[in-house]
Amino acid sequence: MGTEFLKIIDVSKAHNVVKNLFERIYSPISVEKISLNEALFRVLSHDIHAHMDLPPFNRAIMDGYAVKSQDTFGATEENPAMLKLVEVVRAGSTPQKEIKSGFCSEITTGAPIPPGADGVVMVEFSQKNEENIELFTGSYPGQHIAARGSDIKKGELVLKAGTILSPDKIGVLAALGYSTVEVRSKLKVAVISTGNELVLPEEDLEYGKIYDVNSSTIYSALESYGVHPLLKGIIPDEYAAVKNAIKHSLEDADLIITSGGTSAGAGDVLREVMDDMGEVMVHGISIKPGKPTIIGEVNNKMVIGLPGNPTAALIVLDVLIAPYLKNFSGCAAHYKPSDKIKLPMASRFHSAQGRMEYLLVKIVGGQVNPILKNSGAITGLSEADGYIKIPKTTEMILEGDLVEVYFFDDIIH
Amino acid sequence: MGTEFLKIIDVSKAHNVVKNLFERIYSPISVEKISLNEALFRVLSHDIHAHMDLPPFNRAIMDGYAVKSQDTFGATEENPAMLKLVEVVRAGSTPQKEIKSGFCSEITTGAPIPPGADGVVMVEFSQKNEENIELFTGSYPGQHIAARGSDIKKGELVLKAGTILSPDKIGVLAALGYSTVEVRSKLKVAVISTGNELVLPEEDLEYGKIYDVNSSTIYSALESYGVHPLLKGIIPDEYAAVKNAIKHSLEDADLIITSGGTSAGAGDVLREVMDDMGEVMVHGISIKPGKPTIIGEVNNKMVIGLPGNPTAALIVLDVLIAPYLKNFSGCAAHYKPSDKIKLPMASRFHSAQGRMEYLLVKIVGGQVNPILKNSGAITGLSEADGYIKIPKTTEMILEGDLVEVYFFDDIIH
Repeated sequence: MGTEFLKIIDVSKAHNVVKNLFERIYSPISVEKISLNEALFRVLSHDIHAHMDLPPFNRAIMDGYAVKSQDTFGATEENPAMLKLVEVVRAGSTPQKEIKSGFCSEITTGAPIPPGADGVVMVEFSQKNEENIELFTGSYPGQHIAARGSDIKKGELVLKAGTILSPDKIGVLAALGYSTVEVRSKLKVAVISTGNELVLPEEDLEYGKIYDVNSSTIYSALESYGVHPLLKGIIPDEYAAVKNAIKHSLEDADLIITSGGTSAGAGDVLREVMDDMGEVMVHGISIKPGKPTIIGEVNNKMVIGLPGNPTAALIVLDVLIAPYLKNFSGCAAHYKPSDKIKLPMASRFHSAQGRMEYLLVKIVGGQVNPILKNSGAITGLSEADGYIKIPKTTEMILEGDLVEVYFFDDIIH
Repeated sequence: MGTEFLKIIDVSKAHNVVKNLFERIYSPISVEKISLNEALFRVLSHDIHAHMDLPPFNRAIMDGYAVKSQDTFGATEENPAMLKLVEVVRAGSTPQKEIKSGFCSEITTGAPIPPGADGVVMVEFSQKNEENIELFTGSYPGQHIAARGSDIKKGELVLKAGTILSPDKIGVLAALGYSTVEVRSKLKVAVISTGNELVLPEEDLEYGKIYDVNSSTIYSALESYGVHPLLKGIIPDEYAAVKNAIKHSLEDADLIITSGGTSAGAGDVLREVMDDMGEVMVHGISIKPGKPTIIGEVNNKMVIGLPGNPTAALIVLDVLIAPYLKNFSGCAAHYKPSDKIKLPMASRFHSAQGRMEYLLVKIVGGQVNPILKNSGAITGLSEADGYIKIPKTTEMILEGDLVEVYFFDDIIH
C-alpha cells in the first residue's frame, strides 16, 4: 500500500534542504522591465545613478521677486527697497531678461531664477505699485533658491539594488524621468491540486466529491509572497496524470507546488513520480500538521508536495517555503521585528509530543485561543487569525503564557 | 496676486472636515463581483452563510479500513480482528457495498464512509492477507471520520461582512464552491498634476521644466491604500485647464486629487476653480510641510488639492486622506498597534514653531536621523525610511528621546 516515508526529519533540517535548493537553483536573479505604475513594492534589480542634475536649473522655491540680493540689504517696512519690474517668470517658462541692479522679475515657485538674480523675496513681503515693486525685507544670496544639482548631482547613487519600490522611491525614479524600471522577476510557481475527490468551484458536487480548496489558498498565498502563481488545475491521483502535470508545469514554471497525494498510504503517487523523474530529498517532517510533506527536485526545479488538508498545506507553505519565496522576490526586506506579536494564552494547551506543532489560534480580547479542529476542517481557517509555533520539547502551554502569534493576513509584510 | 488662504486651521480640524465629507459622501458602500483569484486582501461586502454541509458526506480522514467498530473492540497485535474485504473505496468514488458484521472496506483519506461502517482503523495497524484483513487495534464509533456537517453546517454564518480576504479566508469560499465573490468596490480616485513646468517621463526636458513626480507617487500610494487610481496626466496651471480636468474627472472618478497650484501666490487657480464649481472647506492647514492644502467638494465628490512639492504631497496624503481611503477599502482593519515603532532620536532637532511638523527620517543603527531638506527635495524621499510627527507644542526633541516612526513602505498595513 504505497511507499514508505523517508526518515522523518526535523523542521530545521527541512529548512536547510529548502535553503540549499533555493541557493543552488534560484540564486541567479533574473530581471524584468516594467512600467513605473506597476512597480509598487517590486524590488529594484540594480543601482540607479542620476543621469541628470536635480533640480536641473536654479529654481525658485517661493512665489515672489527674483532680485540681486545686494539691492535689498537692510530693507524694512519703513524703509523698503524699490525695484523696477522687468518681466514675470512663471514656472515652466524661460526668463528672457537678465536682472541688473535696481531691477527685479516677478517669479513663481518652480520657475528658473533669471541670470543676474541671486535671491528671492517672498510675495508676502512686497507691494506692487504701478511704477515699481516695494520690498519690505532684505534677501541674501541663495535665499529661496534650490540651486541646480543641490538635490541630486548627476552621477550620484540615488537608489540601491534591492530597494523596495514604495511610493516615495517610485517618486525618485519619476523625478529622473523614468517611465519604466528594471526589477527582480517574480518566480513563476505552478499550483497543482491532486485528488480524485476534487472538483472545480461552481461544478455539480456528486456524492463523494468536494470542492478544491488548495488551488485557491495556495494561489493567493503565493501572490501575497510576491510570486507569480500559475494555476494548473485539478488532476486525479494517478501516476500518469501526476507525471504529465509535472512535465507540463516544468515548461513554464520555475518551481512546482502540488497538494494532496503525499501520505504513505493508498494512492500516493507523487512520491513514485518524483523518484522516477528526479530526486526526493525530504518525505516526512516532524511537524503537526504537515508531516507528509515532500521536497524534491526535477530537471533543476524544485517540486514541493504539500499535504492535501487545506490548513496543513497553508501552514507548511507559510512556514517552510514562504521565507525563501519572499527572499527571492525581495518581500523579505519588509519584515520588521515588531511584526512579532506576543500575547497571553487564554487557556492551557497540551501539545503533540515529539513534533513541532503549529496551532491555529483566534485572538479574543487580546488573548490567544487555540482552535481545536483537525487540519482538514475548513472552519479552522475561517475562525483563525493566525497560528502559534510550539517547539517539540514543549509539552504544555499554561494559561497566561506569552506566545508569539503569526498572522495570516500579515504574510505580505 | 492670487487668492488668500482661508483661516489656517489645525490638523485635527482638517481631519474632522475630511471625516465628515467621507461619511456624508461615501458611506453607502458599493459592491463588485470579482473572481476568487483576484480577491486577495479585498474586503467581503456581506455575510457568507454556508449553502451546504462541509464535509458534504461522512468522510474518512485516514487511510485504512472502514469497519463496524464493534467488530474490532479489544483487537491487539496478539489477538487481531479478522475481517473480509468487500471493496476498495478511493477518495472521489462512491461506496457500492454496505458493511455488515465481519466485513470491511479498504478506504483512502477523503473517501466516503460506506453505509454500515462507523469507524476507521489506520492502515499502519493492519495486515492484508490473501483471504482476510488483520486489524491490530480496535476502533470506536466516529474514529477517523469527519461526519457530514461537522465542519460547517448548512446555513451557518462562516464569514462576516468586512472580513479581509486573506488566503485562509479565500479557502473557506473555495470549500463552499464559490468561484466569484462580492467585495467592497474600490474607490476610483483621479490623480491630476498641475504645473506649467511639468513634463511626462521620457520626454525632452527643456530649460525650466522638470519631470512630474506627483502623478507617480500619488498613483502608487493610492494603490497601496486599496484604492483604484485613475491617472489624469499633467495640466497647465490655468483656470480653463484646471476646470476642464476636474469636469472630466468627475465623469469617472469618485474623488479627485490634484497636486500643485495651491499656494496663495501667483498662479493659484485650483482655489478659484473650486470656488466657482463647488465649495472650498479648507485652504491652509497648520502643518509642515503641507500648509497650502485645499479640501473641498464639487458635485458631491471630494476634491483634494495637495501641495506641489512631492514630499509635502505624499505626507499630506498619508496623514490626512489615507486613513479614510483605507477605511473605505477595508485596509484599515490591517492596522495593528505593533506597527507603531518607537525609536530613539540620533540627534537634537528644533521643530517648526506653531505648526504640527512631519519630519522625514532615516533609521541608522536603530536610531532616528532627521533628513534636513526642504520638502521640494527628491533626495529627501530617496533617503527616507518614513517620518515622525512633531506636535506643534513641541519646540525641541532631544537626542535619545523616543519617537514614533511611520514607515512609507508600511502604508499597506
